[in-house]
Amino acid sequence: MSVKIYGMSSSGNCHKVRLLLDYLKYPHMWIETDTRHGATQTDEFRSLNPNARVPLAVLEDGSCLPESNAILYYFAQGTTFWPADKVSQAHVLQWLFFEQYDHEPRLAVNRAIQSIFNSIAERRAEFEANLPKGYRALGVMEQHLKTNVWFGASQVSIADIALYAYTHVADEGGFSLADFPLIRAWLGRMESLDGHTRMQLPALM
Amino acid sequence: MSVKIYGMSSSGNCHKVRLLLDYLKYPHMWIETDTRHGATQTDEFRSLNPNARVPLAVLEDGSCLPESNAILYYFAQGTTFWPADKVSQAHVLQWLFFEQYDHEPRLAVNRAIQSIFNSIAERRAEFEANLPKGYRALGVMEQHLKTNVWFGASQVSIADIALYAYTHVADEGGFSLADFPLIRAWLGRMESLDGHTRMQLPALM
Repeated sequence: MSVKIYGMSSSGNCHKVRLLLDYLKYPHMWIETDTRHGATQTDEFRSLNPNARVPLAVLEDGSCLPESNAILYYFAQGTTFWPADKVSQAHVLQWLFFEQYDHEPRLAVNRAIQSIFNSIAERRAEFEANLPKGYRALGVMEQHLKTNVWFGASQVSIADIALYAYTHVADEGGFSLADFPLIRAWLGRMESLDGHTRMQLPALM
Repeated sequence: MSVKIYGMSSSGNCHKVRLLLDYLKYPHMWIETDTRHGATQTDEFRSLNPNARVPLAVLEDGSCLPESNAILYYFAQGTTFWPADKVSQAHVLQWLFFEQYDHEPRLAVNRAIQSIFNSIAERRAEFEANLPKGYRALGVMEQHLKTNVWFGASQVSIADIALYAYTHVADEGGFSLADFPLIRAWLGRMESLDGHTRMQLPALM
């Protein structure tokens, strides 16, 4: 049974999975799942993922794996996107948790407000509150890149893929990268990888 | 050089690390770090962790590892708290990411508002908004326990430790576990493990 990925192409969390599988040329079936139309709230989808979220991977054995960064871990095993030594592995995970806790809730949420749902008028306070927190996360990344080429390991890893997802479209959530030259250079390194694709905004509802 | 842990004993994210090291009887030095008094905002601490957060582990080689769940991963390697097969490993990580994205930002934040900072009067709207989201996360956990004994693996793992941290003190953030009998039974299983300690609230400022 081949791997299936339930994902929304315009979601950074889903695009992470697409990027890794494309870099690896890993055969899979992509099932486009538009969360704006309730596709993850059906009883059928909840039977696959009670947390009602994409991305969701259905593995070769038929079991279901949610959480974008756990999916990255699974497919990176045995590849160069997961380092061999325990300390580097822990640092890759460090940045994956940073991404989900400090970065995604600001950059992804503001992008959703501004560019996916066009709801900035109704969610202005939330949007404004996210700006300093998102810039703080970008500052932590810029600081790291002063002495490192990649996040987590000495070569490109799933930590870079995860952080790339919402950083390369930061402007769609109202964040400027003008003051983050090292982040911009790192984005360029990511975009030079074979198999790379940028993420597209969805069609308007 | 022995391992050092910078942590605040009343923080669930820090208590996770203590629990694992205690279960494993892993020798370490605990450096109590009270974030309420700015201990993580100094230049000295930021030189160890630019993200200015505890817990922070200083490993045997002198390198610094932040992010509670990455620290759990590191110390669990080679122990029964980290499963051997790739699918189970990915499921353990699934719950670790769930914990940091859906659970901790609701249960930990409301506990901080209500019981650590006594700031419920000033942060009432945030507190109220977190309640349904936190109960939603608890519902996902209860649903999982209908067909599983543990989170992530067939035996107790770091996924259980991470989720235990803020679930066993849910009441300190205004969450009742009355409607979650399977969660209460799982908490009991955790508390029967050798070396277990409950987390204590800090002294008032």
